[in-house]
Amino acid sequence: MTYCVGMRLERGLVFMSDTRTNAGVDNISTFRKMFTFENQGERCITILTAGNLATTQSVISILEERTKAPADRKPSIMEAPTMFQVAQLVGQTLREVIAANSEEGQRADAAFNATLIVGGQIAGSPPRLFLIYPEGNFIEAGEDTPYFQIGETKYGRPILVRAYEPDMSFEAAVKLLLVSFDSTIKANLSVGLPLDLQLYEEGSCARGLSRRIDADDPYFQAISSGWGTALKSAFDSLPDVEL
Amino acid sequence: MTYCVGMRLERGLVFMSDTRTNAGVDNISTFRKMFTFENQGERCITILTAGNLATTQSVISILEERTKAPADRKPSIMEAPTMFQVAQLVGQTLREVIAANSEEGQRADAAFNATLIVGGQIAGSPPRLFLIYPEGNFIEAGEDTPYFQIGETKYGRPILVRAYEPDMSFEAAVKLLLVSFDSTIKANLSVGLPLDLQLYEEGSCARGLSRRIDADDPYFQAISSGWGTALKSAFDSLPDVEL
Repeated sequence: MTYCVGMRLERGLVFMSDTRTNAGVDNISTFRKMFTFENQGERCITILTAGNLATTQSVISILEERTKAPADRKPSIMEAPTMFQVAQLVGQTLREVIAANSEEGQRADAAFNATLIVGGQIAGSPPRLFLIYPEGNFIEAGEDTPYFQIGETKYGRPILVRAYEPDMSFEAAVKLLLVSFDSTIKANLSVGLPLDLQLYEEGSCARGLSRRIDADDPYFQAISSGWGTALKSAFDSLPDVEL
Repeated sequence: MTYCVGMRLERGLVFMSDTRTNAGVDNISTFRKMFTFENQGERCITILTAGNLATTQSVISILEERTKAPADRKPSIMEAPTMFQVAQLVGQTLREVIAANSEEGQRADAAFNATLIVGGQIAGSPPRLFLIYPEGNFIEAGEDTPYFQIGETKYGRPILVRAYEPDMSFEAAVKLLLVSFDSTIKANLSVGLPLDLQLYEEGSCARGLSRRIDADDPYFQAISSGWGTALKSAFDSLPDVEL
């Protein structure tokens, strides 16, 4: 599996993804699932991927036009005038890649599927965040649902539901995401470190802080062990039941 | 879906189940998923059910031998000499019910499946707790894995992983289960109130406290709102990241 979250804040966007890829439990690899397309000051688009790795890598390669000779490369998502059209292009590419594999007589549904989160900003418009389905259609995050999760979403959801605030700082949002990822990693072998983190500050149209968080990252360790202790005291602070 | 937990403590067993049954999102009903077979002082067996409601109700009816005239009823699990044999009988019944439906040409796998938790004690032996698969085989809870979840297990798992202690009191265990159920209910429409709670005190061979917890239960409300607040302060107590 995978676990990725894209989150809309008042001050911008935050993205986090894990890096574990597995085919069965005895074939585990590390692959990056976060990709950024940037033209500094004009646009910055980040894509998070979950699902079949061959599908998602193919989608990213096509978007980057790596299929062309280097001189001819000019990714069309770098020219689309709006984030909506970027999402359409990404969705269309995803659907085409899945369809191309399925045409060869394989089952279309689970096997080649992938789901993507696409977020970013093009100068002159506000930042937008989309969740793209394998069918190529998509939904956009709004005030009511300001974040999207893909992959192994359930373990890490309760803390997001309880602690997310649209006006939280980037620091608080990163802390929240680390808690959500740590809960997932603790419960599910198919989600694993290192994690990729990226911030996007509204209006910058340029990649913000990008960091890879390893297992020996002291802040991650502090969150992971601190959250265990904090949860226990939160639990102890609840009133006792009378049975 | 469903959410049920059976938990082994040093002082006995604790069971909790929700009551929501749904076929699609527009066909929601309330059904009990906790069943107790008791011969006071000699044995007490509790079964929690998740999966196809027709399958689980049929299994319980056969175990209760409701298929026979009242005078002839004598559930065989009330005569099995050990909890292991009780688990075998329940597993065999479950497999037969699933097979009987599947024989009629329907797909066997997802459609008619069910998973059960069986726990209890027969005088002279220690309490035991089993998880029974649709195939009829089963595993037993031990010191390393002292609780079983069935149904919609993921949302409520992180807090169990972090806060369970084998020597916790019944009061603390009920609090823990309520937090786990509340997290699940908040995140998933297919798990819903009221909840059924039952305690089993080691050595009693009789049903302990049994309670139905409704949405307006003041203790559940206190836990549900208190946990939101407690989680927030636990979250705030974590060190801030420097970005």
